[in-house]
Amino acid sequence: MNRKPALAVVGATGAVGAVMLQILSQHADVWGEIRLIASPRSAGRKLAVRGEETEVVALSEETLTGIDVALFLVPAEVSAQWAPIAAAKGAVVVDNSAAFRLDPDVPLVVPEINPHSLRVRPRGIVASPGCTTLAMIVTVGALHAEFCVDELVVSAYQAVSGAGQGGVEALRTQLALVAGTELGTSPGDVRRAVGDGVGPFPAPMALNVVPWSGALAADGWSSEELAIRDETRKILSLPELRVSATCVRVPVVTSHSVSVHARFEREVSVERAHEILATSPGVVLFDDPAAGEFPTPADVVGTDPTWVGRVRRAMDDSRVLELFVCGDNLRKGAALNTAQLAEAIAREF
Amino acid sequence: MNRKPALAVVGATGAVGAVMLQILSQHADVWGEIRLIASPRSAGRKLAVRGEETEVVALSEETLTGIDVALFLVPAEVSAQWAPIAAAKGAVVVDNSAAFRLDPDVPLVVPEINPHSLRVRPRGIVASPGCTTLAMIVTVGALHAEFCVDELVVSAYQAVSGAGQGGVEALRTQLALVAGTELGTSPGDVRRAVGDGVGPFPAPMALNVVPWSGALAADGWSSEELAIRDETRKILSLPELRVSATCVRVPVVTSHSVSVHARFEREVSVERAHEILATSPGVVLFDDPAAGEFPTPADVVGTDPTWVGRVRRAMDDSRVLELFVCGDNLRKGAALNTAQLAEAIAREF
Repeated sequence: MNRKPALAVVGATGAVGAVMLQILSQHADVWGEIRLIASPRSAGRKLAVRGEETEVVALSEETLTGIDVALFLVPAEVSAQWAPIAAAKGAVVVDNSAAFRLDPDVPLVVPEINPHSLRVRPRGIVASPGCTTLAMIVTVGALHAEFCVDELVVSAYQAVSGAGQGGVEALRTQLALVAGTELGTSPGDVRRAVGDGVGPFPAPMALNVVPWSGALAADGWSSEELAIRDETRKILSLPELRVSATCVRVPVVTSHSVSVHARFEREVSVERAHEILATSPGVVLFDDPAAGEFPTPADVVGTDPTWVGRVRRAMDDSRVLELFVCGDNLRKGAALNTAQLAEAIAREF
Repeated sequence: MNRKPALAVVGATGAVGAVMLQILSQHADVWGEIRLIASPRSAGRKLAVRGEETEVVALSEETLTGIDVALFLVPAEVSAQWAPIAAAKGAVVVDNSAAFRLDPDVPLVVPEINPHSLRVRPRGIVASPGCTTLAMIVTVGALHAEFCVDELVVSAYQAVSGAGQGGVEALRTQLALVAGTELGTSPGDVRRAVGDGVGPFPAPMALNVVPWSGALAADGWSSEELAIRDETRKILSLPELRVSATCVRVPVVTSHSVSVHARFEREVSVERAHEILATSPGVVLFDDPAAGEFPTPADVVGTDPTWVGRVRRAMDDSRVLELFVCGDNLRKGAALNTAQLAEAIAREF
């Protein structure tokens, strides 16, 4: 690195932006200027980064000028419009939204798995995967390197913050309604108590789980379920990999969990899987049920790595491993992976 | 039926017992005497059944005398001791515990799936499956009859009432601690707030999911996960069926959900699966995501059937169906299935 590049954080005032400012403050020596950008509505606010109060400026062609690396932490439609503009002005864009993840001219990168993919970026844009893919891909990718993955069946336990700050507020409001009551024991009682207060969800979240997230895609699948399949195929360079995902929202504030059934081409063993997971970057092996050791969202929230436990081999198939993984969907699942990609690009300067 | 048989409800004062008394009151014309039995500690209490206040008597050889059918709604160790005594005194025992489920001389029966198994009962005992098996087996069994199931991968979202009344109380206490707070956003904050109040669970349940239920069995599997496999094999008469289950407790009071990945020997279609599920006894098909129709525990609790939605065929395997099922773990998952078995036996008198 010859000079410290200038960084723009587009979407600095959102939930992922808040986590990003923490991470940038912890890694204070990477960047020259850090410019905080948001919608005109949020311009003028001051946010702390690297210990300095920094004024938020409005997203515009002008504020994207003179930037080396631009992090986009905004909804897909905003990225779709503005990321190409930032790239045209000379910035390398790292986009956290779904806008470019499946674009064949945009690499989709997890630094622990496919860092080499970062180098070829015809559009000047690099994409970070979705939070549920990120919750599982670091462990699956590490095992794939040894055993060669053949099929994945995953069921997700998704936290409400994956649906944004409105999701967190909806759950907190609903919890206040059900705490201290007998709700949850007769048909529809939670739904009646919550009324219209479901927020971004299609059903109540307090005392409930909701088997739907994203938009309706083809043949009954949700867009998030197909995204897990397509992103996993792209990251692992396995375009034919069989992946069946079921996305279920659970009343957890932050940290996604995934139950993973992975079939490999090679024979597996729990002992070797433990060795691999214990030494893989970005992974914490936490797997001793007799001692109460298995990952849960409440223990994992706020931490950087993916936590993995409940490692078992199928009793009747020596090529199948079962895992339970937890990862903070706002950190590794969003801000952290994006920051890792930006820092890898910063080393080019 | 020539005479109305005498029924004993052993464990009348527990959580499943309470649901059983509701069911018996709704089906009021089946039984002659209904004797309510519990531990000596609960003897003398009066409970309403069929509109009459009925005194609870203590479990003893004497109180099991003169009974035609005895329902056991008690922990496995109590069933293991007392069910053979009731059988020796001439009663047909229907046991809701795990004590006899895998005994080769005890049929394990779901009336919608294998009613014929009820007829051969060398020990005079019939067992009802566990609540998580029951949440999924009615739908899987209906599809198996047409497509022939070959492999199941299931991830469960288990309600706290599956761990008894203590589980419900632990969740309610914890919800009161987290409601109105910012808990659930930093490492271990929920665990610190809950302290020792985890009840029967190995970790906090409020704002959390816990990938463990049951006891430690072989090779990292939990006893509940192996039970789902073994019970499914026995009910479907498929002793070699591959079943991989992951049990996860979620902060829901009542109703278990299961994400099911089912591979069949024959080609499947969503259209034919819908036809089968829409006409299967004990099943409600609720599957129109565009209209917000998919089962959730909050909508299903307190109802008798198994609800099924999210029916999709794997995009890359024409023999695989994905389903999401919900069932009330205290009704079909315990009291209702047991009552159905008892009523089928009552028709022999």
